[in-house]
Amino acid sequence: MFKSVRFSAALHYFKPFSTVTTSTNRAIVYARNGDPADVLRVVDYPTLPPPEPHTVNVRFLLSPINPADVNVVEGIYPVKAESVTNLSSTQEKPIFVGGNEGLAEVVKTGDGVAGLHEGDWVVMTRQQAGTWCSERNVQMEDVLKIPKKQGLTEAEAATITVNPPTAYNMLHEFVSLRPGDWLVQNGANSAVGQAVIQIAASEGIKTLNFVRNRDDFGALREYLLELGASDVMTYDDLSDKSKVECIRAMTTGNIRLGLNCVGGRETAVMARLLGEDSHLVSYGAMSKQPLSLSSSLFIFRNITAHGFWQSRWYRDRPRDEKETMMHKMAQLISGKKLAAPAHEIVTISTRESCEQTTNKVNSIFTQLSGGRYGKKILLKFRS
Amino acid sequence: MFKSVRFSAALHYFKPFSTVTTSTNRAIVYARNGDPADVLRVVDYPTLPPPEPHTVNVRFLLSPINPADVNVVEGIYPVKAESVTNLSSTQEKPIFVGGNEGLAEVVKTGDGVAGLHEGDWVVMTRQQAGTWCSERNVQMEDVLKIPKKQGLTEAEAATITVNPPTAYNMLHEFVSLRPGDWLVQNGANSAVGQAVIQIAASEGIKTLNFVRNRDDFGALREYLLELGASDVMTYDDLSDKSKVECIRAMTTGNIRLGLNCVGGRETAVMARLLGEDSHLVSYGAMSKQPLSLSSSLFIFRNITAHGFWQSRWYRDRPRDEKETMMHKMAQLISGKKLAAPAHEIVTISTRESCEQTTNKVNSIFTQLSGGRYGKKILLKFRS
Repeated sequence: MFKSVRFSAALHYFKPFSTVTTSTNRAIVYARNGDPADVLRVVDYPTLPPPEPHTVNVRFLLSPINPADVNVVEGIYPVKAESVTNLSSTQEKPIFVGGNEGLAEVVKTGDGVAGLHEGDWVVMTRQQAGTWCSERNVQMEDVLKIPKKQGLTEAEAATITVNPPTAYNMLHEFVSLRPGDWLVQNGANSAVGQAVIQIAASEGIKTLNFVRNRDDFGALREYLLELGASDVMTYDDLSDKSKVECIRAMTTGNIRLGLNCVGGRETAVMARLLGEDSHLVSYGAMSKQPLSLSSSLFIFRNITAHGFWQSRWYRDRPRDEKETMMHKMAQLISGKKLAAPAHEIVTISTRESCEQTTNKVNSIFTQLSGGRYGKKILLKFRS
Repeated sequence: MFKSVRFSAALHYFKPFSTVTTSTNRAIVYARNGDPADVLRVVDYPTLPPPEPHTVNVRFLLSPINPADVNVVEGIYPVKAESVTNLSSTQEKPIFVGGNEGLAEVVKTGDGVAGLHEGDWVVMTRQQAGTWCSERNVQMEDVLKIPKKQGLTEAEAATITVNPPTAYNMLHEFVSLRPGDWLVQNGANSAVGQAVIQIAASEGIKTLNFVRNRDDFGALREYLLELGASDVMTYDDLSDKSKVECIRAMTTGNIRLGLNCVGGRETAVMARLLGEDSHLVSYGAMSKQPLSLSSSLFIFRNITAHGFWQSRWYRDRPRDEKETMMHKMAQLISGKKLAAPAHEIVTISTRESCEQTTNKVNSIFTQLSGGRYGKKILLKFRS
């Protein structure tokens, strides 16, 4: 099931749990699938050798932790990370490097690499590239350049490949919305949800946004309204007939697109708001409950249910389309129409021992699994 | 909510529960929504007066009872029957005539009616036309002629407008299947299911058919295989890993279309057989359970879920498209590629009292609601 590839010749020298730091590089790896808080550990490895022809050595500047990354480590994601083999004479099993998304800087280019130079910023277009590390050697066709002249911050560039295109594609691939049209979404405070709000607002599309009820709902509501949300409500509001009446009056019963990253009951009640001939697009299942909808929504209201997976999009689309998408996203960001998600930078430093940073990483994932991190975490590997 | 129309001037003389039969016409009617076995009753009414201009008097030859007709009487169907008012001086409430589908013979045409003559066969294209009666006066644009030279039997022509086009459209509107491609369906012994098997077989498309387990499963399986089914199984078989392996081997994991009239668990397990990029089309919910599918089917396997409703098709399509469809269906039938569903003709005769026939009708619907009728019932009103 797992494809096996060479990480880099230099990774022969992976030294799990070394207490004496002789290497300048670090990676967050796992040898088997499981709860990230249990199976992830931080290891050292030395600086990479010069790149082979048509490959590039890159140093990661910021590497996000996205929800799907957790599923990959758990082994329940349909795309597996590629394992790194031949790490050392003592290594018994393949090792996987975590992380799918990241902003990296070109350190050195191999022969035959055109259009990339030392210091250039690049993002990964190959899925499960293993971005939770200091340095990697990558194929030139697996990265896309992000021109620095576009003026993006590191955090903006590091989070550009997954969530913004997911939001953009879901807004455009299923139904042609015009200014004034409505969409409804759940999990609206997710990174994708925030991108949906902003991109929709930039096109004059109105968004009705649902989140779980919480102590600081007022503050979250204000935050999403400032991003451009037309309204923000909780799932509880959908049990209140008068509020549902208000929604119908406000949207004139013409919600043409629904976006779902939750599943379960929250989606069933939200789907009832959808108008005739509308589309419901699922891109996540945070409740871990199935998507359960009345058949009458399909038969009599002619609703169509789709899934969207940005990884499939990267797999199936030609390189020029990916470049165009990155350009569009960068324009939205530099035009102040799309902000990086609220985030926190966590440093993985070689000044601490591997055990210390392993504990730090495990603690992050314990908090993530409890849903207690309101912000996106961006990992910064520092020598 | 209910639109109110005049049935016919002659219906002023509706005489509910008359024991002396002075009228030559009968109708199965209801005054309020509810369980058909409770609310339906048979009433007499006299022969129609001559038709107004642009209208036609027709006499029904055979009028099917379809599953949706039950939902209309129950009041849970999104299209309501039009009520008949001004029936008699004693009538307090609007009365509805049951039935949506039927074959009728033209008795008399009004002025300005072109292309229809006495003795011609017609079917209804207006939904909820109220076909469970002896005679009606209808608008000329609400009927389509079925040329007798096509050689259809009464039963074939009476069942041509609902189930065969439903099957045909579901086979063609969502995915382009080629000979050798597979589809899977549940409720495969339904009238639509049987039509799907036959139309698919006529195009070289393979069908994997699921039905509930039952004592006479062997006989039902043989019957469906003779219609052209590639294979017939029970939902229980989907719990058997080795049988699922067999299915995957047989279909080479490439089932591109799923048809669902059941909902609930039976559909969830069937949907797992669907291949990447396939389509699941729902047209019924016999289990009365919601359609509950793992989000991963949508996101990672890129399955799209649609609904299909033949009534919408009739509402939205131009007359020439409806004529073409009827012609196609008649060709399939006269070419022996599509048979009328297994059926039983039940006579509603004026030789029996209204009470007797009311009891007969109620008994039929009691059996239908228990799912104990294996055959489609065609009502024959006889003077």
